[in-house]
Amino acid sequence: MRIALDAMGTDTAPGPEVAGAIQALRAYEGDDVEIILVGDEVLIEAELAKYSDVPEGISVHHAPDRVTPGDPPASVIRRKPESSIVVGLRLHKQGEANAFVSAGSTGAVMASSLFTLRPLPGVDRPPVGALLPTARELCLLLDAGANIGCKPQHLVQFAHLGSVYTRDAMGRPDPRVGLLNIGEEPGKGDELTVEAYELLKSEKGINFIGNIEGRDIVRGECDVIVCDGFVGNILLKFYESVAGYIVDLLRTELEAAEDSGVDLEHVFRVLDYAEYGGAPLLGLGGVSIICHGGSPPKAIHNALAVAARAVRSGLVRHSEEDLRIPS
Amino acid sequence: MRIALDAMGTDTAPGPEVAGAIQALRAYEGDDVEIILVGDEVLIEAELAKYSDVPEGISVHHAPDRVTPGDPPASVIRRKPESSIVVGLRLHKQGEANAFVSAGSTGAVMASSLFTLRPLPGVDRPPVGALLPTARELCLLLDAGANIGCKPQHLVQFAHLGSVYTRDAMGRPDPRVGLLNIGEEPGKGDELTVEAYELLKSEKGINFIGNIEGRDIVRGECDVIVCDGFVGNILLKFYESVAGYIVDLLRTELEAAEDSGVDLEHVFRVLDYAEYGGAPLLGLGGVSIICHGGSPPKAIHNALAVAARAVRSGLVRHSEEDLRIPS
Repeated sequence: MRIALDAMGTDTAPGPEVAGAIQALRAYEGDDVEIILVGDEVLIEAELAKYSDVPEGISVHHAPDRVTPGDPPASVIRRKPESSIVVGLRLHKQGEANAFVSAGSTGAVMASSLFTLRPLPGVDRPPVGALLPTARELCLLLDAGANIGCKPQHLVQFAHLGSVYTRDAMGRPDPRVGLLNIGEEPGKGDELTVEAYELLKSEKGINFIGNIEGRDIVRGECDVIVCDGFVGNILLKFYESVAGYIVDLLRTELEAAEDSGVDLEHVFRVLDYAEYGGAPLLGLGGVSIICHGGSPPKAIHNALAVAARAVRSGLVRHSEEDLRIPS
Repeated sequence: MRIALDAMGTDTAPGPEVAGAIQALRAYEGDDVEIILVGDEVLIEAELAKYSDVPEGISVHHAPDRVTPGDPPASVIRRKPESSIVVGLRLHKQGEANAFVSAGSTGAVMASSLFTLRPLPGVDRPPVGALLPTARELCLLLDAGANIGCKPQHLVQFAHLGSVYTRDAMGRPDPRVGLLNIGEEPGKGDELTVEAYELLKSEKGINFIGNIEGRDIVRGECDVIVCDGFVGNILLKFYESVAGYIVDLLRTELEAAEDSGVDLEHVFRVLDYAEYGGAPLLGLGGVSIICHGGSPPKAIHNALAVAARAVRSGLVRHSEEDLRIPS
């Protein structure tokens, strides 16, 4: 298996990409995984030269251009066909790579993935997933911001795509799907959620457990939460920031506690998004994983692991089959 | 000034209400504040009898009936006219009390307040506010769940009502208003927020600072955040639960740290909703404050303080005047 990794995506590229790729290959030693670093070959080779023991299975594919924050996402495909994002996706599309991972501009990766990999039949609006830490296991929230103004049937498609993803890439045998809403009872919510509830409760092939309120999210009672990208995006960004805020509140005490044997490493690890390996784009004819622009090597490593698992499990084929089930 | 306090609202009523009222009167000694405990006079008197030193200024107004969780909120006014909620609001409406505070069913208090106190001229959909802890000061989020499917002009009304409230009841001289959205730039968002942005940026009498993303909320850069009640409710409930979740994550370490001099009291206090004194209903011809059903005496005390401040500052009159300004 080959994974194309955009080597020019993070804010300090290609350092974290190269380090993450090396970490990943060392961890998978013996597995059949190769990583293609896509980007400026001079910069990448210079970075690789810092390592005395680059594992086998790393190669470089030159892409002379680079997407910058000022580039309108939708125009990247047309205006920057030789950028690392577009070149990496093209390698995937042409079968030279089995998946694509990037920490570049979220909008550009989404738009370019959509254009290059195309939505699967039955998918109107491919969603982006986000993994939320909960009191139990991680929960996949989708849509996390790609689709604003969803229709009820889009949430049903998200439920299918999220179920296949959590089954294939996260090992959940019978994923529970919740609908993000403002009350537990059926009939609660806005027009979208009231109608989506009705569709979801009789939809075949998903394990719908009903409405999920804001306060239920961290309890971790579902594997997949579906919602419109507007509320999903606000919730995700809020969650990412609030953990930091609460930890800041604790900072003085933590500093005092550092000498007193208080072990907070586990807490930070649970709340650390770098652990979770990026946000998958779902419902496309390929595997495309987006990482934060500030990703450290560990986050890149984990995103590569998620991509490998998605490829190995047959995520795309399963998604396609699942959506073909007549509902 | 007299405040009508629903004495039958909390899950363990009337204990917390009586204790909170006594705390409040002791704190305001010398101020001209009286509290009318509204509810079952036998139960209230029995509770008062537990105190040897009940301060002056407490009186009891009998209300034989009580709203229960099974009562449909909209029907309480008609079906339970002698409930503590309806009787308390009537005392306010008739001028025998200057404000009403209740920890009873949120829906019942909202519906009964709306019906009894009526919206002010210029207010189509009175919002409910919620106070969010931030890295700086508390921030008023509205609407927190009373209004689903808002129109752009409703968010403009919320901006006015929130500005007057934070000025009058929270002492913010020039409240900054943000629009909750999924991007910072104008033009981002769903239909509602795109149109609301256009209205808000040219609206007179408010200090609009633009779009606020999920990650900006805890930074505390605005005094008022306006949004539709759907996203506001999900965000509020999520925030209430996530603090507890993160503290749970810390629990083992906290227990270990208890003996090691780590002082976490401040952290808990900042995240403790009981500190903040309830959720105000805004845009009505009166002052109505809703507390959590699980409110301890401190929360009741603080809600009474907020009500007193709202009355003293002329909140209702200011709201009415503010909404009369031609925009």
